[in-house]
Amino acid sequence: MNPTHDPTLRSFIDVHSDSPFPIQNLPFGVFERKAGGRARVGVAIGDQVLDLAVLEEEKLFGGEHLAGQRVFAHSSLNLFMGLGRPAWREARRTIQNLLRHDNPTLRDDAGLRKRAFVSQDDVEMLLPAQIGDYTDFYSSRQHATNVGSMFRDPNNALLPNWLHLPVGYHGRASSVVVSGTDVVRPHGQLRPNDDEPPTFGPSKLLDFELEMGFFVGPGNELGESISIDEAEQHIFGFVLVNDWSARDIQKWEYVPLGPFLGKSFATSVSPWVVTAEALEPFRVEGESQTPEAGNPPLLDYLKQQGKRSLDIHLEVGLWPEDADRPTTIAESNAKYLYWSPEQQLTHHTVNGCNARPGDLMASGTISGEEKGSYGSMLELSWRGTDPVPLRDGDERTFLKDGDLVTMNGWAQGDGYRVGFGEVHGRVLPARSA
Amino acid sequence: MNPTHDPTLRSFIDVHSDSPFPIQNLPFGVFERKAGGRARVGVAIGDQVLDLAVLEEEKLFGGEHLAGQRVFAHSSLNLFMGLGRPAWREARRTIQNLLRHDNPTLRDDAGLRKRAFVSQDDVEMLLPAQIGDYTDFYSSRQHATNVGSMFRDPNNALLPNWLHLPVGYHGRASSVVVSGTDVVRPHGQLRPNDDEPPTFGPSKLLDFELEMGFFVGPGNELGESISIDEAEQHIFGFVLVNDWSARDIQKWEYVPLGPFLGKSFATSVSPWVVTAEALEPFRVEGESQTPEAGNPPLLDYLKQQGKRSLDIHLEVGLWPEDADRPTTIAESNAKYLYWSPEQQLTHHTVNGCNARPGDLMASGTISGEEKGSYGSMLELSWRGTDPVPLRDGDERTFLKDGDLVTMNGWAQGDGYRVGFGEVHGRVLPARSA
Repeated sequence: MNPTHDPTLRSFIDVHSDSPFPIQNLPFGVFERKAGGRARVGVAIGDQVLDLAVLEEEKLFGGEHLAGQRVFAHSSLNLFMGLGRPAWREARRTIQNLLRHDNPTLRDDAGLRKRAFVSQDDVEMLLPAQIGDYTDFYSSRQHATNVGSMFRDPNNALLPNWLHLPVGYHGRASSVVVSGTDVVRPHGQLRPNDDEPPTFGPSKLLDFELEMGFFVGPGNELGESISIDEAEQHIFGFVLVNDWSARDIQKWEYVPLGPFLGKSFATSVSPWVVTAEALEPFRVEGESQTPEAGNPPLLDYLKQQGKRSLDIHLEVGLWPEDADRPTTIAESNAKYLYWSPEQQLTHHTVNGCNARPGDLMASGTISGEEKGSYGSMLELSWRGTDPVPLRDGDERTFLKDGDLVTMNGWAQGDGYRVGFGEVHGRVLPARSA
Repeated sequence: MNPTHDPTLRSFIDVHSDSPFPIQNLPFGVFERKAGGRARVGVAIGDQVLDLAVLEEEKLFGGEHLAGQRVFAHSSLNLFMGLGRPAWREARRTIQNLLRHDNPTLRDDAGLRKRAFVSQDDVEMLLPAQIGDYTDFYSSRQHATNVGSMFRDPNNALLPNWLHLPVGYHGRASSVVVSGTDVVRPHGQLRPNDDEPPTFGPSKLLDFELEMGFFVGPGNELGESISIDEAEQHIFGFVLVNDWSARDIQKWEYVPLGPFLGKSFATSVSPWVVTAEALEPFRVEGESQTPEAGNPPLLDYLKQQGKRSLDIHLEVGLWPEDADRPTTIAESNAKYLYWSPEQQLTHHTVNGCNARPGDLMASGTISGEEKGSYGSMLELSWRGTDPVPLRDGDERTFLKDGDLVTMNGWAQGDGYRVGFGEVHGRVLPARSA
C-alpha cells in the first residue's frame, strides 16, 4: 500500500470522521485571506487551510523536485500542475509528514503555526487554475441513453459513435467559476413551438448537470499525442462540476455545431482539487468495454488495463430560497462513467491537439441506471413530465429563481472520507434585457 | 472623412503601392528580433516593423489614454486590446503622425530610427494575442448551404435556426497558431464505410477553411451582455484565419455535440491584426436581413443599422511541394458573410457569457455564390467528386502532404491597399502512431 493512504494516519489538526479533508486527502486549492493579502495555494485539512506559500518560504519543501521552486505563492495551481507527478507526490509526502500528529516541526512552533494555518471560515476560495481550455465529454452511457430516448429514438438512443469514442466538445473557459458564484438566468433565443418563429427571453428550462472534472498537469506539444499508458502522468486531480444548462436555448441552437449559449453562461467547480494520488485506493473496475460484454471492440489506442473507474459517491441537493432545508434530489456515483479520464485525455490528444497545464476536462452528466441517480433535472423530471418532489410539498421540473443547487462527493475509506467539499450556486433572476 | 484614411498620406518609409502595409493601415503584431531580445508589439509599415516598445520608452505616446501606460513591451496585444477604442484611436493617430513624410521626430533622428525600425525579414512574428477562448461561427450562407446540400438535403440545405441567429461553436484555443507553423496531418477515428466499424489512422480528407477572425478588446462581466449598438466598441481588429479541418474525423465524431478533433489539431492566423478603424472606409451594405428580401425578420437584439459588411478581397493559394509555383484556387470576399462581427459578438454574450480581451472569434468558412469563390476543398472539389485543377497538370480533391496553403486578403483603397499579409502553413506527413 502507498503509505500516504494509511487509514491509521492522524494529524495534530482535529479532523472529524465525516470531514471531507482528513490527512489522507490533502486537496489543493487557491485562497485569499478575508483579512487581506494575496492569493496563494493551500491544502485543506479538517476545517483549516494550510498555506503552502508559508511552507515554501520556510524552505520546508526540501525534496529533489520542489527544493528551490516557487510555485505556491501564486493565484493559480498552474505552475504546480505543470511540474508533474514526481513533484506532486513529493509535495503530498512532505505536507502529510508535516501534518502528522507525531511531527513537532509545525505542531510545536506556535509562530509558524499561526502564519501557516487559517480557518476555512476566514478565507475566500478562488478558481483553482487559470483554465486555458475547457472540454466537456459525454461519458455516461445512461445519460446519453436518456437524452437520446427523449429527443430522438428510444430504440436507438445511443448514436453509432458513442461506444467507439468518448464524445466531447469544447466548452467556454471564461465562464468557469468557483463554487459560490451566483448564476444569472440567461436570456436567449427559444422556440417553444416548432411551427412558430423563435422568441427572445429568459430561459424557462434552466438545469444543472452533475459532473466530475479533472485538471491536466504537464501537457503535450502540438502535433504530439498522449498514449493511454502515459495518460495518468498528465492528470493532476479532480473537482466536482456543475455544468449549468438552458435546455430551451440549447434545443434551438445546437444543430449542427453542438451546444453553445445553452451552456456558456456558467460552469461551476468545487474549489478543492483532490489529487489523483489521493483517489488511488478508490479505483474500481469500469463497465467492461469488450465484445464479451456486448460492447463493440475498442480501437487499440483506447484500450486501457487495470481499474479505470473511480468509486465516488455523488449527491445533488436543491434548496429553494423560501425553504427551511434542502432536499437531496439525486444520488449517483462516478463509477457509472463508461469512459475513463485517461481515455478522454488520450482521445483528446490523438489528433495532435495540445493540452496545457490547467486545462479542465469534465465528464459530462453522470447518471446511473435508477431514476434517483440521474444527474440533471431534464432526466429527473423526464423532460418536465414528472415533477421532482421536494420537502414540504414543493416540487420542481426545472430550476426556479432563488434555487440553490449543491453538489457533494466523497470516496469512503476505512474510517475516513476523501471528499471534495461542495460546489454550489444560486439562480438569480434574469437581468432586464 | 476620418483623417487617418486620407489617401494622400505618405510616410518617410518607402511603401510600394501594392504593399499591404501603407500608412493608412498600421496593423499591430507581436514580434521577436531574430538577432535576439524579448517579444514586443510592433506596427507594420511597408517592409519594416516599427517597434512600439521603443516609442513607449521614449514617451512618444503623450495622449491622455496612453501617457504613462506600459502596454507594448509585452509578448501579446492583450493589454493594449483591453484599453478600448479611445486608446486604439490615439495610438493610431500618434503612430501615423510619427510616420508622416513631413514629421522630423523619427525621420531625422538616426539613432532612434535605428532602434525603432527593423526589417520584416529580420523578425519572427508570434501569435498576436494570448487567446482565452476561440469561437468559430458559421456565418456564410453559401457555405452552410453547400454543406447542407452535400450532407443532408439540397432542398432544405439551411437548417431552421440558420437565418435567425449566427450559429457558432467553441473551438480549441491551445492549437491556434501563427502563420508559418507547420500542420501535422492528424490521426483519428474514421468510418469511411457506414456499414463497417470505425478504423484508426491518418486523416485522408484534410482540408483548409478560409475565414476572417476578429479579436475582442474590452470584454464584459459574466452575467452582462454587449448590445448590438455597443458591439463595435469591443472589436479591436481582424486577421485571416485558416481553420484546418479533417473531414473524415469530423464526419464520424460530430453528432450530436459538434466538431471536436476534426478541427482542434490546428487553426492558423495571420500575424498582423488590421484594426477595425483602418477598415472603416471599406464597410459596405450586407445582404438585407429583412422579410422584404425574403429572409425572416430578426429578433430586435440582432438588428443592426448601417453598413454591416466588409469589402475585403480574399485569395487562397495551393503550392504543392514539388511544384514551381502556386495556383490560386479560390477568390472570395468577406462581404459574402450574412452575419456581421457585431451580430456575432452580441449574440455570443446575450446569455451573459463573458468575453475577454484577446478572445478570437472567427467567421466560419467564407464562400461566395460562384464555385471559384468557395472557401474549402470540400466545396471546391464538391466532396471529392470534382478535382480542382492546379498548374502543370496537377489536381487536388483534398490536401496532400507537402502542400503549402496560403491565404491573402486586402481592402482596395484609392491608390493603396489595406492588407492582411498572408497566413500560410504546410501539411506535414502524419507522425507514426
